[in-house]
Amino acid sequence: MTTELVPGNTLVTASPDEGRALAIKLARLTIKAIQPDGEVRQRLRPSYAENADSLTAAAQVVAIEFATIAAANNYWRSTTKSSS
Amino acid sequence: MTTELVPGNTLVTASPDEGRALAIKLARLTIKAIQPDGEVRQRLRPSYAENADSLTAAAQVVAIEFATIAAANNYWRSTTKSSS
Amino acid sequence: MTTELVPGNTLVTASPDEGRALAIKLARLTIKAIQPDGEVRQRLRPSYAENADSLTAAAQVVAIEFATIAAANNYWRSTTKSSS
Amino acid sequence: MTTELVPGNTLVTASPDEGRALAIKLARLTIKAIQPDGEVRQRLRPSYAENADSLTAAAQVVAIEFATIAAANNYWRSTTKSSS
Amino acid sequence: MTTELVPGNTLVTASPDEGRALAIKLARLTIKAIQPDGEVRQRLRPSYAENADSLTAAAQVVAIEFATIAAANNYWRSTTKSSS
Amino acid sequence: MTTELVPGNTLVTASPDEGRALAIKLARLTIKAIQPDGEVRQRLRPSYAENADSLTAAAQVVAIEFATIAAANNYWRSTTKSSS
Repeated sequence: MTTELVPGNTLVTASPDEGRALAIKLARLTIKAIQPDGEVRQRLRPSYAENADSLTAAAQVVAIEFATIAAANNYWRSTTKSSS
Repeated sequence: MTTELVPGNTLVTASPDEGRALAIKLARLTIKAIQPDGEVRQRLRPSYAENADSLTAAAQVVAIEFATIAAANNYWRSTTKSSS
Repeated sequence: MTTELVPGNTLVTASPDEGRALAIKLARLTIKAIQPDGEVRQRLRPSYAENADSLTAAAQVVAIEFATIAAANNYWRSTTKSSS
Repeated sequence: MTTELVPGNTLVTASPDEGRALAIKLARLTIKAIQPDGEVRQRLRPSYAENADSLTAAAQVVAIEFATIAAANNYWRSTTKSSS
Repeated sequence: MTTELVPGNTLVTASPDEGRALAIKLARLTIKAIQPDGEVRQRLRPSYAENADSLTAAAQVVAIEFATIAAANNYWRSTTKSSS
Repeated sequence: MTTELVPGNTLVTASPDEGRALAIKLARLTIKAIQPDGEVRQRLRPSYAENADSLTAAAQVVAIEFATIAAANNYWRSTTKSSS
């Protein structure tokens, strides 16, 4: 029950950029948990990374993970500057 | 109505890592509830675990389950250290 | 407007396990509302329950329903014990 | 801008059952808005209602709509009895 | 950065019906932003509007957009009448 | 961990329109992070941008990203005018 599924075991990040990187990482660690064989994952990568719909589906997972991370960080409201 | 669908019958976990493991478990227990035949599930596993889009779809379910678990735990804000 | 779509007409459940069972039930009652013919539903079941992607898609619906039920129950925070 | 897209122009319902019926209705009214031709919709219905994956996809839309309706009604907490 | 992606540049609407219309509009404006060529969009329309699964997928996007708009409007609780 | 994944490293935007543009940008930056090869991305674009279902899937990702951005900005309630 203590497999690394969340790097650093926290959802708190210093900035949106790092939150985004964490979202991508979480998605990859799920895939790794379901398919632990690194060779299989490498074999799957080309066809997946060159298929637009596969990339869109992956982007959707990242978007969902990021929603959770952003909420965990109160959207970094106090630590980020407003754009204009 | 008391089938085990949630291990320990709680959404509360000690850390994000354990929350993540619970999310994966919840997804698997749903599949088990819908398809109780273990032999069928084993038979389905190879083609699924070697298909990038199937893995992405599974990762999406985990992401959605995790969102709920993270909210239930107030994102482990008080129990986790901030990364930097 | 009073078809049974929510068993007991409440989202409140005693525990996460029961909340999970309700999520599965809600998903099934939606299918039943859209396809009321029980024979058709039975006919569809084998191919669906033996297809990994179909099962993953069903698990996703359950995850979304559960998110709502969990929120309705304040994540059962006061009624469940913390795991460790 | 005043096409009927929400019956009664409110998300408030008396009970979860009615909230669920509204979720199904909202999904149907979106389809109708996108494909206003009733004959086309009728023609599409059989293949859709006899395809397990199509039904699951429809159930997912209903689940998402219901999440919004449930939040709008504060999950009917005060008006529903707790199950046990 | 000021392309029209949100009509009127606000998520606030007078009623659920208008919120729903805005959700449909937001989805269409995203498609337009990704595929700015109107002729291509017109060419794609028939096959899409006569495919049940395509319509369901579109309805799902509308449901997600509507969830955001409904939250932005506090679910129009104070401005709408309760149904019964 | 400081790759540009969020332009300006903030979720705060001046208006819904800009929030929407950010949502589209976030989705694209995810794709870029997963498939860094610009030539591959360009090669994938035509078939994707001329496929209705691919466009709908992309619009769904944008909708999910936007939900997060809108929450981060408190739905721009104080900075936008009510439509009528």
